Amino acid sequence: MTPTAILETALYAADLDAAEAFYGGTLGLVRTMRAGNRHVFFRLEGAMLLVFNPRETERPPGPGGLPVPPHGAVGPGHVAFAATGEELDRWRARLEEAGVVIEADFRWPAPDGAPGPRSIYVRDPAGNSVEFAEPRLWGFAD
Amino acid sequence: MTPTAILETALYAADLDAAEAFYGGTLGLVRTMRAGNRHVFFRLEGAMLLVFNPRETERPPGPGGLPVPPHGAVGPGHVAFAATGEELDRWRARLEEAGVVIEADFRWPAPDGAPGPRSIYVRDPAGNSVEFAEPRLWGFAD
Repeated sequence: MTPTAILETALYAADLDAAEAFYGGTLGLVRTMRAGNRHVFFRLEGAMLLVFNPRETERPPGPGGLPVPPHGAVGPGHVAFAATGEELDRWRARLEEAGVVIEADFRWPAPDGAPGPRSIYVRDPAGNSVEFAEPRLWGFAD
Repeated sequence: MTPTAILETALYAADLDAAEAFYGGTLGLVRTMRAGNRHVFFRLEGAMLLVFNPRETERPPGPGGLPVPPHGAVGPGHVAFAATGEELDRWRARLEEAGVVIEADFRWPAPDGAPGPRSIYVRDPAGNSVEFAEPRLWGFAD
C-alpha cells in the first residue's frame, strides 16, 4: 500500500481576499469554501487546493472544536498546475492580460535536442511560486 | 480554461534524509530524484510530491542554470493523501508500527448522523502535517 493520489495541496497567504481573486478570479478555480480570514478552498478534478492564513491555522483548535492539528508555513511555497502545450500559450496570454508578471517561461532539457516540456512561472499575491507545466515533464501523459 | 490537475505539491524539510525515509520508506512512495541536500521528489499517479530544503531553493539559480524561480517556506506545511476507509485502518496500523505518533484520528461531521469521512493526521520528520483522508470529504468518489 502506498498513497496514489494527493487529495489536498496547501499554500499559505495572509491576504485571503487577494488569494481568492488570483486563484478564483485570474485562474478560474472553483471556490468551495471561505472561512473569514482563516482559509479559502478550491476544488479541482479529484483534488483540492487549500489556501490558509498561517496566523490562524497555527493556533491549536479551541475547546469543543474538531482536533484538527495546527500548521502554517511562512515564506514562498510552490505549486504546479498541469497544462497542455496549447494551454500554456493561453495561460501566458491570460496572465499577462491580468497584469501578472511572467517570472520565467522556458523548456526543460530533453534528449536528442527535442523540444523539452515547457514551464511558465508566476507569483501569486502572497509570493508563492505558481507554475504551469506539461505533465510530460514527469513522464505523465498530457 | 481553468486548471484541472495539480501536477506538483511541495513540502519543505531541512533534513532530506529523514524526509526520504518517511515518504519513501514508511509511506512507500516511489522516489524519482534526489539532488544532494536540495530536494527529493516522489511520483504518485499523475502527480509529484516535491520535498525541498528551503535553505537551498531560496537561492536564485546560478549563472548558466535554468531560470527556475526561488522559493522556500519555513514552518509546518500540510498535505493530504487520499485513502479509502479500509486503507485508513491499514495506514493507522502501519504508522503505529513504524513508531509514528497518531496526532488525530476522527470523523468529520456528516448530515443525518451518518458516519462522516475519516481523517488521520501525523507529522513528517520536519513537522509538516500529513493527513490521510477519504476523498468523499470533498465530494469525490473514493
